[in-house]
Amino acid sequence: MKSTRLLLMVYKPKQNFVRSVYAVIIGVLAFCPFSLSQESTEDKDALMIRKIYDHVLEKGDGYQWLHDMTTQIGGRLAGSDGADKSVYFTKNILDSLALDEVYLQECEVPHWERGEPELVKIMGGKELRSTALGRSVGTGPEGVEGEVIEVFSLDTLEKLGEKMLKDKIVFFNRPMDPKQIRTFNAYGGAVDQRVWGATRAAQYGAKAVIVRSMSLRQDDYPHTGTLAYDENSPKIPGLAISTNDANYLSQELKNGSVRLFVRNTSKNLPPKRSHSVIAEIKGSEFPEEIILVGGHLDSWDIGSGAHDDGAGCVHAMQVMQTLKALNYKPKRTLRCVLFMNEENGLKGALTYADTSNARKEFHIAALESDSGGFTPRGFSFDAEAEVFAPYFRQIVEWEGLLEPYGIHFWKGGSGADISPLKSQRGILIGFRPDSQRYFDYHHTEIDNIDAVNKRELDLGAAAITSLIYLLDSKGLERE
Amino acid sequence: MKSTRLLLMVYKPKQNFVRSVYAVIIGVLAFCPFSLSQESTEDKDALMIRKIYDHVLEKGDGYQWLHDMTTQIGGRLAGSDGADKSVYFTKNILDSLALDEVYLQECEVPHWERGEPELVKIMGGKELRSTALGRSVGTGPEGVEGEVIEVFSLDTLEKLGEKMLKDKIVFFNRPMDPKQIRTFNAYGGAVDQRVWGATRAAQYGAKAVIVRSMSLRQDDYPHTGTLAYDENSPKIPGLAISTNDANYLSQELKNGSVRLFVRNTSKNLPPKRSHSVIAEIKGSEFPEEIILVGGHLDSWDIGSGAHDDGAGCVHAMQVMQTLKALNYKPKRTLRCVLFMNEENGLKGALTYADTSNARKEFHIAALESDSGGFTPRGFSFDAEAEVFAPYFRQIVEWEGLLEPYGIHFWKGGSGADISPLKSQRGILIGFRPDSQRYFDYHHTEIDNIDAVNKRELDLGAAAITSLIYLLDSKGLERE
Repeated sequence: MKSTRLLLMVYKPKQNFVRSVYAVIIGVLAFCPFSLSQESTEDKDALMIRKIYDHVLEKGDGYQWLHDMTTQIGGRLAGSDGADKSVYFTKNILDSLALDEVYLQECEVPHWERGEPELVKIMGGKELRSTALGRSVGTGPEGVEGEVIEVFSLDTLEKLGEKMLKDKIVFFNRPMDPKQIRTFNAYGGAVDQRVWGATRAAQYGAKAVIVRSMSLRQDDYPHTGTLAYDENSPKIPGLAISTNDANYLSQELKNGSVRLFVRNTSKNLPPKRSHSVIAEIKGSEFPEEIILVGGHLDSWDIGSGAHDDGAGCVHAMQVMQTLKALNYKPKRTLRCVLFMNEENGLKGALTYADTSNARKEFHIAALESDSGGFTPRGFSFDAEAEVFAPYFRQIVEWEGLLEPYGIHFWKGGSGADISPLKSQRGILIGFRPDSQRYFDYHHTEIDNIDAVNKRELDLGAAAITSLIYLLDSKGLERE
Repeated sequence: MKSTRLLLMVYKPKQNFVRSVYAVIIGVLAFCPFSLSQESTEDKDALMIRKIYDHVLEKGDGYQWLHDMTTQIGGRLAGSDGADKSVYFTKNILDSLALDEVYLQECEVPHWERGEPELVKIMGGKELRSTALGRSVGTGPEGVEGEVIEVFSLDTLEKLGEKMLKDKIVFFNRPMDPKQIRTFNAYGGAVDQRVWGATRAAQYGAKAVIVRSMSLRQDDYPHTGTLAYDENSPKIPGLAISTNDANYLSQELKNGSVRLFVRNTSKNLPPKRSHSVIAEIKGSEFPEEIILVGGHLDSWDIGSGAHDDGAGCVHAMQVMQTLKALNYKPKRTLRCVLFMNEENGLKGALTYADTSNARKEFHIAALESDSGGFTPRGFSFDAEAEVFAPYFRQIVEWEGLLEPYGIHFWKGGSGADISPLKSQRGILIGFRPDSQRYFDYHHTEIDNIDAVNKRELDLGAAAITSLIYLLDSKGLERE
């Protein structure tokens, strides 16, 4: 009961928490002998965290690794040469760190190819900057032409019906909501159009769909990302256009009907063999308790996936490098996992979880960095209330240790790659950097190293390493 | 006593606060009837803050104002044409907002001109990318030449003495400390070399000084900024070189002695008349209680001062625009002040404070935004403990209202322009955005609009407007 109550408190809006706490303090401040028993442990922890930050900020290799991976290899879509190269590139680095084990875990991944540069053109008008969505079928070299119909939600399709949609090109143009403070919420509120637009429009006979790019910025870069097909619906092509061109097209439609020509030669090929990369330091006291830190190695084919998710990979690698450099001997097994195929299949993550479950492993915690290499704001904890509750007190203490570094904790999601581990009932954690610029670059040709600030990247690695250290050195102690 | 105690708590490291609070909660949770009496006021405040954010994120003009000012006018060093133009540019915008009063406040400002492009060249070697420091005298068109001596602190000069320093060019090369989490602390720990290097080296007969740029990044951009001369020492030229060139020069010095040629034609001209820009909404209930929000209008001459401090100016203007747009009638007098000459004289701020004191005004609060247009992290409160203490409870409550927006409060500095108001014993507040990228641009030719992210800028304006709203609608209530 007590735990549930506390849990409710931390999950309530903070202002209530602060006010309540304040009222309590006033009442009992004079009578409460504060516990000092943990002082020395906390001092030791504070010192270790300071050492971690000092090491990463002065000597961290993450930025250089990310620089080399993104400039020497570039895009790393699952099934591509780039993805294969990145497997060996990161394995080589991890091999050099003198960890206990570095190995590849095989998985079968979808193999999609973009084909020739896309063409989306207003008939009798200008070309729109476009990119095919991942998994999209092609129009064939001859392309398709049709009248454009603009909609702002999936539900509108049902109202319009086959009568209005047959042989049309459906244009999904609901913008991400700028009023959201965390941009991932704005993304979550708009991305249904990109994911399900093609399948839903196909059910009413549409020829193709065009989606406004998932971005809060007005600019010229189209954003790719995956769409999903339903087995029962025809597969029609889906492409994104830039936010500037989405506004332009919308304006043109206000002036009268518009016909578009769309051509892409994307195709889905037979699955290919690929790999996730795994590196491990065995625990000295509780080797059966696994703490995972990871990101995903694959990226989209346009750009070089510097923030998504090269940053997460080098964060995870930097955790291992830093703890080794500081000669820290973990009590628990630390495992760095660079997952393959998060973007369009999650096959690396599913294979990893299946293998782990088959081996009856237990991940006491898994942390993913897949929100970019920006200045850290904190961590979101993703667990059922009854899983999380017994550890709440401990986790609040850890937050106190990280607050001097601008780190806060809240409840929220964790990461796509670690989500299949939820059934092991450990704590899943998402690294949460500042999100304001993330969707300026996400899935575009400009997600490159020059969009990454070294200090921001390093601070993320230091924050993650610090939390991994706390998880390892304390474990999760039930109250 | 109670207040002092609470004050100590908030000023202590947060982990202790959290732990203590936690211990208290456990003990008394069941017995404490939490106060609900303020619920409706808080709901009203939360709603108003949400409206402020919605307005700024959807309809804020700040980014466009900043775009136009930086691209149409450019650099705005006090005494320059750019500075004059910016006075009328911002006054025109403020005039259009239908405030109660908009006026210029005259001040006399130093007038320094950079002159011809600087030349710093290794004799028999390459040219180093350089910029004269503000207030620096020139070498004359003939330049100066001398042997370079590298030092890492001002104190080293005394040890070296005239014997080692006479006729030398002193090269100050202590980097900003990357281990600092807040980059302003790293700046504070290194900038003595730029400010006092020339004066101190001149006391031992040096011919000129070269300073490593105040930046945490390795790149090719030299950073200007002001130096200070002492009346009793000869005035010798001071220039900054880029961090890449500082490393290069340092390496060359390891290989043997290096002679440098330095030429700049900077000069200090007679003072000029300039202006700060002031806009006001009169308070409906307590017009004598002034709440100031401001930034500084002047910038360095290289670049266009987008972050430093165009961002602060448009933040302050956006406060006025937003509250007008929401039809908010302030109880207290809200004053937006765009100060002239923060960079090399602070004459606008000093004139403002003198005038205010002569009129026996009382600023209950003054808030400055002069740390760039990055994602807000919070506000630092700058006041003597006995000034701050009676308001602590209230301010903690406000923090609770802003925490959902990622805003936190701490003790710290406020801003150079508002610091002369400290004697009025109101609360001085510094707006604190994320600081990681600030010194990448600070005082360089790349501090331009393309370094500013619209959402980050807008979130700052919304946070500041929200705090100004709370200050106005509540005032400062002594416990």
